[in-house]
Amino acid sequence: PAHSPTHYSLLLLDWFQPLDTDSPYGSLWPLPQTVRFDGECYRLNQGRFQILHSSTSTATVGCGILDDAFRRYFGYIFSSSYRTTHRRPVSSGPEDKEKSAPVPEMLQLQVTICLADEIHVSKLRATLKAETVWGHLINKTDIIDFPRFTHRGILIDSSRHYLPVEVILQTLDAMSFNKFNVLHWHIVDDQSFPYQSITFPELSQQGAYHPVTHIYTASDVKEIIEYARLRGVRVIPEFDTPGHTQSWGKGQADLLTQCYNGEEPSRTFGPVNPAVNTTFGFMTKLFKEISRTFPDDYIHLGGDEVDFSCWRSNPTVKQFMESHGFGTDYRKLESFYIQSVLDIVSANRKGYMIWQEVFDNGVKIKPDTVVEVWMESNVKRELAKVTRAGFTTILAAPWYLDYVSYGQDWVKYYQVEPLHFNGTAAQKKLVIGGEACLWGEYVDGTNLTPRLWPRASAVGERLWSQENVTVLGDAYSRLTKHRCRMIRRGIPAEPMFVGHCAYEYKG
Amino acid sequence: PAHSPTHYSLLLLDWFQPLDTDSPYGSLWPLPQTVRFDGECYRLNQGRFQILHSSTSTATVGCGILDDAFRRYFGYIFSSSYRTTHRRPVSSGPEDKEKSAPVPEMLQLQVTICLADEIHVSKLRATLKAETVWGHLINKTDIIDFPRFTHRGILIDSSRHYLPVEVILQTLDAMSFNKFNVLHWHIVDDQSFPYQSITFPELSQQGAYHPVTHIYTASDVKEIIEYARLRGVRVIPEFDTPGHTQSWGKGQADLLTQCYNGEEPSRTFGPVNPAVNTTFGFMTKLFKEISRTFPDDYIHLGGDEVDFSCWRSNPTVKQFMESHGFGTDYRKLESFYIQSVLDIVSANRKGYMIWQEVFDNGVKIKPDTVVEVWMESNVKRELAKVTRAGFTTILAAPWYLDYVSYGQDWVKYYQVEPLHFNGTAAQKKLVIGGEACLWGEYVDGTNLTPRLWPRASAVGERLWSQENVTVLGDAYSRLTKHRCRMIRRGIPAEPMFVGHCAYEYKG
Repeated sequence: PAHSPTHYSLLLLDWFQPLDTDSPYGSLWPLPQTVRFDGECYRLNQGRFQILHSSTSTATVGCGILDDAFRRYFGYIFSSSYRTTHRRPVSSGPEDKEKSAPVPEMLQLQVTICLADEIHVSKLRATLKAETVWGHLINKTDIIDFPRFTHRGILIDSSRHYLPVEVILQTLDAMSFNKFNVLHWHIVDDQSFPYQSITFPELSQQGAYHPVTHIYTASDVKEIIEYARLRGVRVIPEFDTPGHTQSWGKGQADLLTQCYNGEEPSRTFGPVNPAVNTTFGFMTKLFKEISRTFPDDYIHLGGDEVDFSCWRSNPTVKQFMESHGFGTDYRKLESFYIQSVLDIVSANRKGYMIWQEVFDNGVKIKPDTVVEVWMESNVKRELAKVTRAGFTTILAAPWYLDYVSYGQDWVKYYQVEPLHFNGTAAQKKLVIGGEACLWGEYVDGTNLTPRLWPRASAVGERLWSQENVTVLGDAYSRLTKHRCRMIRRGIPAEPMFVGHCAYEYKG
Repeated sequence: PAHSPTHYSLLLLDWFQPLDTDSPYGSLWPLPQTVRFDGECYRLNQGRFQILHSSTSTATVGCGILDDAFRRYFGYIFSSSYRTTHRRPVSSGPEDKEKSAPVPEMLQLQVTICLADEIHVSKLRATLKAETVWGHLINKTDIIDFPRFTHRGILIDSSRHYLPVEVILQTLDAMSFNKFNVLHWHIVDDQSFPYQSITFPELSQQGAYHPVTHIYTASDVKEIIEYARLRGVRVIPEFDTPGHTQSWGKGQADLLTQCYNGEEPSRTFGPVNPAVNTTFGFMTKLFKEISRTFPDDYIHLGGDEVDFSCWRSNPTVKQFMESHGFGTDYRKLESFYIQSVLDIVSANRKGYMIWQEVFDNGVKIKPDTVVEVWMESNVKRELAKVTRAGFTTILAAPWYLDYVSYGQDWVKYYQVEPLHFNGTAAQKKLVIGGEACLWGEYVDGTNLTPRLWPRASAVGERLWSQENVTVLGDAYSRLTKHRCRMIRRGIPAEPMFVGHCAYEYKG
């Protein structure tokens, strides 16, 4: 009963009826900038396949990142699970074609590193990515590739639920398969403080769900950062203040604002207390440690959803407001606090990302600040405003993947165009990318991966490929194949609609 | 941003704000009929714990079902992963209590089998279930238990996506942890025919997604049935006809109705063709095989969503209608077909279940037929109608778990009361249970288990416990603990809301 799509139509925001036609681009995902297939076809043979540094490359044997990547992708191409399950034993056609295809003397994948930094990685990846359409056969193919946006992020949340390190590493694997290059690690929040600080060990000792089993040790963090680095992914930690800090208060006395019921202190605490000097001493030491632990040039400082009611109730805070001439405008107090934290982080020679409220409230931020737009209402106006003020920005609002719904919601994510807002060409250049956000209220190690993939893949192509890559039928055809490839590589990416993979996930 | 529940409130059908209070019933799920805790407390010690047959039991050593169950539950109680992760090393309190609790000389769980068949299993289970509240400590507890409804089913769909055998076995484990006792296996449908028939091997050879890797062999089916039996679960296969049969047509020529465009045959086929004798010869042989393969007393015959347009277009069918005096009432043709299949199945001494349309359309069905109500509109009226006609019925409509939505939808499933319809006490007795249905359009091995559990657990308690067990806060408290227990036993049951388990699922 009620199995056929038509029965569900009223429930769907965006229904997409998949076509039976295959994409001419096979399983390429995200679609490269230019692809030219040639009729020529070769058989792939493990013994006659090499990945090597070209003689003109600036990289040579001994470059750890490349050695690791060569080994990894050699495995993906020739792993036995792939080989044995990919062919349909009884059908004919592909096999015949395969048998008649010439096995070249030796097939060499020559990797050339010839430009600086960022570009290297993209070039490298483009080359490796070509592998993914081969199957047993390889078409003679020319691919030129580079990303449309430079910031292609996935947000994970390890505070609402603790995410085991294994789950984060698997996410990094899947990110690299989808050309995401930023892990936005929302590491702490109200619910728990799993980051183990060397300077303030009480924070996780008291604030984590469990002080031993539910924390990220220094070595965990190091492992995650290195695993990410080898896959071309930056790790940007978010330490969100002054709101979203309930768990901080458990291990750091007097950090949070004591709320009052009239004259009496209540049992509850509010945001970080900006009216006492100890707060800034604490933040200085903590962010110094964080700046050293996380090598990326940026730290995300949060700054969202600050509730003023507790500040309003507290006599010390009220006095502080008066002495600073803030009147009753608590946004000024918020700005005062955030400004101080930004200065602390700047002193550690780090750039910062912040949620849009910090910009909206008029806090003075450095020119290289990245403003993250997350509020669903007035996204276009916000993008216009932020870029008009000259700030770089990334888009998160349309890509809150924790909001699940019935049916093919990848279509909704895929159809977003980040530059559809009123602004000059210069303004549009300030939109450097976006993030697919998987907040953790209903997500932990049991369901994170199938909930994220392949839904986030839709965001991945939007951020990588050309603006005009928007044909749903073509995308569906490629993405279903790409999902099966992810499964073959160990990622339990959920199905997009009815169908099957040659190799199914067995749990 | 947008992390706190209040922000989402507009999106939620049923928001439930969990309380901080623990249930007095600990982690018991589903709640037994009566529970009496005693203050006395003992330590559990693996070396001093026995499960044995009581001297008055009619079962003795050598009873395979019990031997297997004893071993399994001994493992759940004393497995090392459970032991090592359950205690919080740094906190105090519970450990102190544990240390001071007396270790009894020998703790014996005596199992008595004293009644016939069905009841045995319930009694046995009730006894074993008591284990689940122990932790390291065991309270002196008296539990009397039995189910409110006898049919507590889970529907899985292996046609829209092939479900690997491992995934089905895991589902059976989870079912037993939640006292479900019927696996409704919707094994074939339009999309694929994975059941490998010995009599008609071409059905899966041509109709499965893959004729070797995506089928259920005779030995697969046997393994699943035996695994289920040892856990007190019946397996009822569904072979849905005359609609939902596109995949059948690939391996069985002339079974489906050829559709016409005016005078010309089109390229499409409709439901099973009831106008030719070959159809019933085929069905007789197939259902004879099915009746032997599946030992349960019931087979589900489907009968839902028959589309008449193809029948209308076909000249042979039209002629058949005339010669049988059906006029243009295709419901009469549908009834004629179903009647014939019911007779075939009856001849194999099997009972049958059918979807509600078969009853609605006035097909003559045997008194012991189970009518499954799945249409969301007018559920109460349908239940009244079916039971007024004297048929047993099970409820599926409010429990279509494939419809996912954001937030705590377990509340919606939990709040269903199957007997809230207008009818006499005798009518209500005919409602023998219900089924949580996880249709397969968007479900395969990658996401089946976390999507099913613990959402189906809410249905499980509704079907097991007393009608007045409806307090949401109490249920939330117990079910969050029960979810963690499922994880400890290897089931990746997804989180209900923010929080943690002592032992997290690592993928």
